[in-house]
Amino acid sequence: MRHTPNLEKILVFDGAMGTMLLEQGLKPETCPDYLNILEPQQVEEIHLAYLKAGADVITTNTFGGNRWKLAEYGLEDKVKEINREGVKIARRAAEAFNGYVVASVGPTGQFIKPIGKKTFQEIYEVFREQIGALAEEEPDFILLETFHDLGEIRCALLAARDVCSTPVICSLTYEGRRTLTGVSPGSAAVVLEALGAWAVGANCSGGPEELFHVIKEISQNTSLPVLVQPNAGLPEFNQGAVTYPLGPQGFVCALEPYFDLGIQLVGSCCGSTPGHTGEIKKRVNGVSLPMPKDVRKSALASREKVVYLGKDELPRVIGERINPTARKILGESLKQEQYGIIQHEAEVQVEAGAHLLDINVGVHGIDQRETMAKLIHLLQQKIDVPLVIDSTDPNVIKNALEAYHGKALVNSINGEERCLELILPVIKRYGAGVVALTLDEHGIPVKAEDRYVIAEKIVKACDAYGISRNDIYVDCLVLTVGTDEKAPIETLRALKMVKEKLHVNTILGVSNVSHGLPERSKINATFLAMAIANGLDLAIINPLDKAMMDSWQAASLLAGRDTKATNYIQLNHGNKQGIKGDHQATQEKY
Amino acid sequence: MRHTPNLEKILVFDGAMGTMLLEQGLKPETCPDYLNILEPQQVEEIHLAYLKAGADVITTNTFGGNRWKLAEYGLEDKVKEINREGVKIARRAAEAFNGYVVASVGPTGQFIKPIGKKTFQEIYEVFREQIGALAEEEPDFILLETFHDLGEIRCALLAARDVCSTPVICSLTYEGRRTLTGVSPGSAAVVLEALGAWAVGANCSGGPEELFHVIKEISQNTSLPVLVQPNAGLPEFNQGAVTYPLGPQGFVCALEPYFDLGIQLVGSCCGSTPGHTGEIKKRVNGVSLPMPKDVRKSALASREKVVYLGKDELPRVIGERINPTARKILGESLKQEQYGIIQHEAEVQVEAGAHLLDINVGVHGIDQRETMAKLIHLLQQKIDVPLVIDSTDPNVIKNALEAYHGKALVNSINGEERCLELILPVIKRYGAGVVALTLDEHGIPVKAEDRYVIAEKIVKACDAYGISRNDIYVDCLVLTVGTDEKAPIETLRALKMVKEKLHVNTILGVSNVSHGLPERSKINATFLAMAIANGLDLAIINPLDKAMMDSWQAASLLAGRDTKATNYIQLNHGNKQGIKGDHQATQEKY
Ligand SMILES: [Zn+2]
Ligand SMILES: [Zn+2]
Ligand SMILES: [Zn+2]
Repeated sequence: MRHTPNLEKILVFDGAMGTMLLEQGLKPETCPDYLNILEPQQVEEIHLAYLKAGADVITTNTFGGNRWKLAEYGLEDKVKEINREGVKIARRAAEAFNGYVVASVGPTGQFIKPIGKKTFQEIYEVFREQIGALAEEEPDFILLETFHDLGEIRCALLAARDVCSTPVICSLTYEGRRTLTGVSPGSAAVVLEALGAWAVGANCSGGPEELFHVIKEISQNTSLPVLVQPNAGLPEFNQGAVTYPLGPQGFVCALEPYFDLGIQLVGSCCGSTPGHTGEIKKRVNGVSLPMPKDVRKSALASREKVVYLGKDELPRVIGERINPTARKILGESLKQEQYGIIQHEAEVQVEAGAHLLDINVGVHGIDQRETMAKLIHLLQQKIDVPLVIDSTDPNVIKNALEAYHGKALVNSINGEERCLELILPVIKRYGAGVVALTLDEHGIPVKAEDRYVIAEKIVKACDAYGISRNDIYVDCLVLTVGTDEKAPIETLRALKMVKEKLHVNTILGVSNVSHGLPERSKINATFLAMAIANGLDLAIINPLDKAMMDSWQAASLLAGRDTKATNYIQLNHGNKQGIKGDHQATQEKY
Repeated sequence: MRHTPNLEKILVFDGAMGTMLLEQGLKPETCPDYLNILEPQQVEEIHLAYLKAGADVITTNTFGGNRWKLAEYGLEDKVKEINREGVKIARRAAEAFNGYVVASVGPTGQFIKPIGKKTFQEIYEVFREQIGALAEEEPDFILLETFHDLGEIRCALLAARDVCSTPVICSLTYEGRRTLTGVSPGSAAVVLEALGAWAVGANCSGGPEELFHVIKEISQNTSLPVLVQPNAGLPEFNQGAVTYPLGPQGFVCALEPYFDLGIQLVGSCCGSTPGHTGEIKKRVNGVSLPMPKDVRKSALASREKVVYLGKDELPRVIGERINPTARKILGESLKQEQYGIIQHEAEVQVEAGAHLLDINVGVHGIDQRETMAKLIHLLQQKIDVPLVIDSTDPNVIKNALEAYHGKALVNSINGEERCLELILPVIKRYGAGVVALTLDEHGIPVKAEDRYVIAEKIVKACDAYGISRNDIYVDCLVLTVGTDEKAPIETLRALKMVKEKLHVNTILGVSNVSHGLPERSKINATFLAMAIANGLDLAIINPLDKAMMDSWQAASLLAGRDTKATNYIQLNHGNKQGIKGDHQATQEKY
């Protein structure tokens, strides 16, 4: 097996296989992937044409080589053979050119829940079978390409990571600024990087002009190499035939802006030919590899939206209201599977400014594993902010992370050995963020220093599992000030210590501080400000409480996390009091 | 000259001189102090009687030896003679007993402004003359006794400190829990300690029972030795004659609770005789000296009220509204000497919860020195919270500190050499607190570290002048977040650094942070919470702004400075929402 390539130059990928086969007379009733068995020579010659034109990387003829696609031709038993042969052919061709072989994997043609009917496990198995076959022939990369849906490509990527250590390039296809199923380029980049992709990008879609903003958004949201493989312009449909307007020169001219973005992997898709590849090669020859960006930051994502976190970002608000613990009505609605109220709660919290939503289904007498997944299916369709999976049960968490197509935050783990062993592998596998409570089997330590010790232990365990510090959110735990007036100080001290020494994110469920006291909102809002002053990144609060949101706005500004007061001024537009405002009311009295 | 005594045992002071002289036939038309010249033998025998009875300390017959009192007998030219002889007689008597001599100084019989017509300087000169005479004969102590008014005793103490280094004991006389002019025992203790008294206490007043709570309050508010010299019970008036009910045994029984307070200086006053002194001596013989308390803390005081500050106290609020800078109407009222509006502003701020009031008279075209003094005369009569003298002019400050009878805070000095040299001696002399701005001739440093350097410089200068760290209030300066969103962070960092390393108090004028932005109150309230979280002790704010006072209440609680939430619960009484309060509003919707 060859080693994972260290990028030393911009890699030129080949162009369309399908376009070439169609030109060479492929009939609609013929399965293109089956040509690996029927006409290996024809396939190899296309590879050779691209290699001769200058491609550094050629793509196997296995795009439709999964069981469900092959079944359309009655070839569901040929998965292994077709895919293995596909790699072998490419490898034969590439050898003389010292070219790389990427094994192409396209979508199954079926949709995963909640968009379609297929379960995570069903989709996963189909990819596992195909990629397993490809991997046996040791391609240099796996290329998951032309995917519409983040849910599906996640399955494919997880399957690839399970069957081999081959680097995986993940590429979706976009209609304008979103995929067919509504996925944003930024979200795709964040989610797939979290899941262990080696590179991310986009292919097919429209032509190079239309795809530019997609690739720009991707490259702003990832530190991985970025792949771009546009079609040869926007396809034109004339009397049943599809044509592509851009010839080789025009295509490469249109690619120009991409080089400024620092893309490292470039090829072409539908409508392209070796001529296009040749022009690309000429353009990049001798161009040095763009410096790798390090945009690695803390991020969570829904299918549509990326939320960045950490000290250079606004502190973020997690809406706490979807929690049946203190709200009987929510418990009832969960039991009866009447999710209208919950959807409403989600919507009003987002409207009020929540950046993420906590989902807690802790009710007795329901299958929480099932309920959590159902809610996630529902809410990721209805609202666009990332979700926080509020559970400590490894089964609930695993199922939820399969159901969720974004990069979720799991709330929570703690310092107990058993908890770390059970949950951290799940967090790592599904590329989630994780809330770490500073408590363990002995309870919540009184002193900040002792909470810090637990935080450090959890962080080291995360390090050992390869979970990035960017994905850890330490919760130093808020106790009730009415019981012990020194309790909030310990929380704030622990928060500051964790933030300064462990380089992780921090999170707090704020409202508990005022338990049992009058005028709770006043205390909560004030404590939020203090916590933000001490380095809080994420606050679990009730976003419908205006005092809390006011405090969040102002504290974000005052903590230097609202550059040029942009957020504050936007949210308070039209309320400008003027400089002497404080005094005017009084002056009018006289 | 003998050395200042190091207390090694409880010192027993003698009893009444007047009572003895009256018993021996002193006529009303005779000046008692003149007996030092006319009948030195008679005076000396009374001293000897007290010394024989067991007095460690005898009191010179100079109580009425000031120019104004002596003038009542046409003896205004005999000040020097009468006082010097008084000390000489006592010294002769004390010698054989190795007794201490205290030089008695009583009030002038005139009242200082604003209660009376006499100026600070007039009163001061009268005391300076008498004490100057006494000091020439080197008594062991000066005893300022039976004063009704804090304003007057301040003059006497300053005069004593100016003419000699003899330790000064300051003792007022009380009617119930206040002096005739409304001074509280705690305020007297704080103000006189700040001015350099060696001991404080009370004499005369009612009998030992009535005086107990006065002495208790004094001893709770000072770390100095405490003197108690009650009358021999509450005087009874029968047919023009005054009698005192407590004989020696009864008197000493009634003194019992004082020993639990740890008093170190004990004697008797009107109606007492050597018999009383003998019983006191028996009681304290062999009793070891109570441990000195260290209650030395940061305190400011009006005539009536002591406000403690520092990390174990509630953060305190200074009302900022008496400031004509942004309020034209106040400027007009100052020019026209119509102070009704200002008095009203003072009253509403105190009602709203201000613990101190800032007084700024910065208007062009008025004599600020004069105006400040007038306002102080007015306001210290009308409101009971300590005042903050907001000026940087040494003349305005000096005059204000003479006009004010309490322990004021001076706002402000800064790190300029010239400013320190001019103002620090004034602060030290008048026993005030001082606000130190972290700026100097180069302006306000951007970085917290550089502001800290200025703070440190000022603190060291204060050290050199003998100004206690308890009396320093460092202001790390609030800049506008709208201009630089990192500015508040620097202020908070500087605040924390100063608080942790310099062991001084901290103060901030909060409102400037929101200058030019909409919804300023929201920003101000949030910044106040952040500042309190970082160790703010004193906030200059608008107490009529409810959001600010809410933030102050809650932040005080959350910073652990409101023990058992007492302050918070008291201010929010009747607003108890109950534990599930946050959720109920929502539940009711369904
Ligand atoms: Zn394509
Ligand atoms: Zn609702
Ligand atoms: Zn008396």
